[in-house]
Amino acid sequence: MFTIAIIGIGLIGGSLAYALRGFRDCVLVGYDIQPAVTLQAKMYGAIDIAAGSAEQAAEQADLCLFCANPTAILDGIANCRVFYRKGAVVSEICGVKEELARTIPSLLPEGVRYIGLHPMAGKEVGGFVNAERGLFKGAGFILVPPENHDPNALALMRELSEYVGAGQVIVNTPAEHDDIIAYSSDLPHVTATALVSRYPQALTLAHTAGAFRDGTRVANIDADLWTDLFSRNRKPLLYHLDGYIDTLYALRDALSRNDKEAIRGFLNSAQRNKRRIQDL
Amino acid sequence: MFTIAIIGIGLIGGSLAYALRGFRDCVLVGYDIQPAVTLQAKMYGAIDIAAGSAEQAAEQADLCLFCANPTAILDGIANCRVFYRKGAVVSEICGVKEELARTIPSLLPEGVRYIGLHPMAGKEVGGFVNAERGLFKGAGFILVPPENHDPNALALMRELSEYVGAGQVIVNTPAEHDDIIAYSSDLPHVTATALVSRYPQALTLAHTAGAFRDGTRVANIDADLWTDLFSRNRKPLLYHLDGYIDTLYALRDALSRNDKEAIRGFLNSAQRNKRRIQDL
Repeated sequence: MFTIAIIGIGLIGGSLAYALRGFRDCVLVGYDIQPAVTLQAKMYGAIDIAAGSAEQAAEQADLCLFCANPTAILDGIANCRVFYRKGAVVSEICGVKEELARTIPSLLPEGVRYIGLHPMAGKEVGGFVNAERGLFKGAGFILVPPENHDPNALALMRELSEYVGAGQVIVNTPAEHDDIIAYSSDLPHVTATALVSRYPQALTLAHTAGAFRDGTRVANIDADLWTDLFSRNRKPLLYHLDGYIDTLYALRDALSRNDKEAIRGFLNSAQRNKRRIQDL
Repeated sequence: MFTIAIIGIGLIGGSLAYALRGFRDCVLVGYDIQPAVTLQAKMYGAIDIAAGSAEQAAEQADLCLFCANPTAILDGIANCRVFYRKGAVVSEICGVKEELARTIPSLLPEGVRYIGLHPMAGKEVGGFVNAERGLFKGAGFILVPPENHDPNALALMRELSEYVGAGQVIVNTPAEHDDIIAYSSDLPHVTATALVSRYPQALTLAHTAGAFRDGTRVANIDADLWTDLFSRNRKPLLYHLDGYIDTLYALRDALSRNDKEAIRGFLNSAQRNKRRIQDL
């Protein structure tokens, strides 16, 4: 019997639980730090067995999926170290990987294998109540194996990604992952939150259309989670933020000179890049 | 018989034509610089009469709506000056108003009244083929009367806005309008285009989720139109862009010191503002 432990049953953990139903005929054991959430996940049929602790979930599992914020993931994986089954695979869904790939393998006993996973899916609202089976449909899944990883463990995680609905599955090194995600996820959260940091007094909702709504959607942010993510990924984020500020300065300069050719060149190049990215 | 001329039958002009059907039992006269578009609009029933020129459309109309880019609007309004009916109302849908409010009234003959209009609705795709009756449903409509405007003309434009589906109708002075729109429309177009101006080589579509897609949606931009808008509104845009860059620098500073309290404070304040703006 293949047993999967979901440790942390929020938006991602809960949605994975729903979507994993039937994968390798698995039994799903779940644990959330809030006992009411663990029970609710059992009642809703997201999990088969409600565990009383992370350790109790881990000791039954062939695959342990840690689905929480970065700090809780690192603590949870460490706390369970003497409980993993021999040959178990340990994974987690954290949005920053280099630190984890450096730390986690040394925490694990001989024969327990680690593969990082980053499903590129989310919502502005979190928690198990917002979990849904279809959350990962078409989403990018980034697999982040550490150095000297076990190819079988990587194959398991690829199979799992495809089963839950992944569109494209990519394998990145931890450093590649963190660099690209600093650009494609952290930076858009910076641009959206910075946009609403100050606004004109006379602004009304009537003045805002799609460009503003979309450009600021993720500003309705989980501040604790994103403080953790920004802080842990600050080196590549600073690199991309500096590039972004340079770009804004170049446009600022063109605007202040009213250099229409430079403004048009900037916009044309942005439009080309936007279309190129859609084909990557 | 109340006659409305739609001069420029693109996304906005075409959608207004569809949505104005039945307003004051009007007859709709349309003209587009592309003859094929004028005919298409007639064939699709968006307009009742296809005019052969802007002047020919204007001379029949109690209300002339100029729906083109800023330069074409200014030229069109000037070119029609000897053709307007006595007592006609002239309006336009340009996204920048101060320059127009300064210029247009002096172009118009005695008794022809000007009111600026800015419907806060659009799409990433333009042209009459993308026009639709429901485009303005729930959208903010900003009315921008010049100094010493005629209250009856303003009332007509308010009635029209509500008829085509406006959510909230706001009256702003030209300077207020341009300042707020530099923030709520121009700046989000800057942030989106700047985001795609450079991207990591190893980026794939799998690395992009909702935050990136929404944050860069309008980067698929009409470069000519937005060069014109940015250039004409560059003074308030520069003001808000400088504020935005200052905000990014403050966050940059907090990140480089790994000051989690400052990062969390920034994100919490952004979240509060985002929610406040939704209630304005």
